[in-house]
Amino acid sequence: MSGPARRDWRLHPRLQQDCHELGRLACASVLLMDNADYPWFILVPFTDRVELHELDADLREALWQAVTDLSRFVSRCFATDRINVAAIGNVVRQLHVHVVGRREDDPCWPGVVWGTQAGPAYTPQAVAAIRRQLQAAPELEHELEIVKT
Amino acid sequence: MSGPARRDWRLHPRLQQDCHELGRLACASVLLMDNADYPWFILVPFTDRVELHELDADLREALWQAVTDLSRFVSRCFATDRINVAAIGNVVRQLHVHVVGRREDDPCWPGVVWGTQAGPAYTPQAVAAIRRQLQAAPELEHELEIVKT
Repeated sequence: MSGPARRDWRLHPRLQQDCHELGRLACASVLLMDNADYPWFILVPFTDRVELHELDADLREALWQAVTDLSRFVSRCFATDRINVAAIGNVVRQLHVHVVGRREDDPCWPGVVWGTQAGPAYTPQAVAAIRRQLQAAPELEHELEIVKT
Repeated sequence: MSGPARRDWRLHPRLQQDCHELGRLACASVLLMDNADYPWFILVPFTDRVELHELDADLREALWQAVTDLSRFVSRCFATDRINVAAIGNVVRQLHVHVVGRREDDPCWPGVVWGTQAGPAYTPQAVAAIRRQLQAAPELEHELEIVKT
């Protein structure tokens, strides 16, 4: 795996501030953006490389498998019309991949969610419920290791 | 490969209108968005599936290799600060992946390019030059088959 070992990996402070860390897969941390308007998840791979095309082949493959699994989970659990997948990183340089479930009746359809107003925050109960859903998701094959908070 | 055979594949009229088709790889058509403000490329895989997570594993793998190769090409040839990679498809349902070279001095940095004003169109000479660059790119290993226009 490219970059520092997972134990040395640190989540960017801005992501830490804007998101809830739900758990960790072997290749990446799984975050929930604190915006209850959308089922907006973010995968942050355990690497110090900042571009997708700089990843070693094994990590790139594992990351795309995680994107696929997470997309299937979001599509099934949140009755979405479309999944938006993106690696942008113009503001937060640490490599991260958005997996956002979109609905034709959501607040910014058909526009993109990036750069829009912040939405309502989740309650702690709502975050806990999504964490449990994700942990039990067959799409992730029970691979999610819960982060102790 | 999932979906219809490549010979039955048709580019969505909206992508045809907004972009120049530069050529074809084995798995996808390579487009250039007609906006000279950014080196903005689009890969359109030869499939009728509309979500990344619905692709068969072989096409998904080939597509991500193409995204990687194209990102390396854009990064090298256009002196970019960041590559933005995204599959959105809220407006054009046909599955397509944006590979956009971004610079800290470009018109909408650090915002995203989707949903912004159209920029200046390319001249035919500029499009031909980019097509030649892409065709000669070692990143694509001379795999690009030029589309006759």
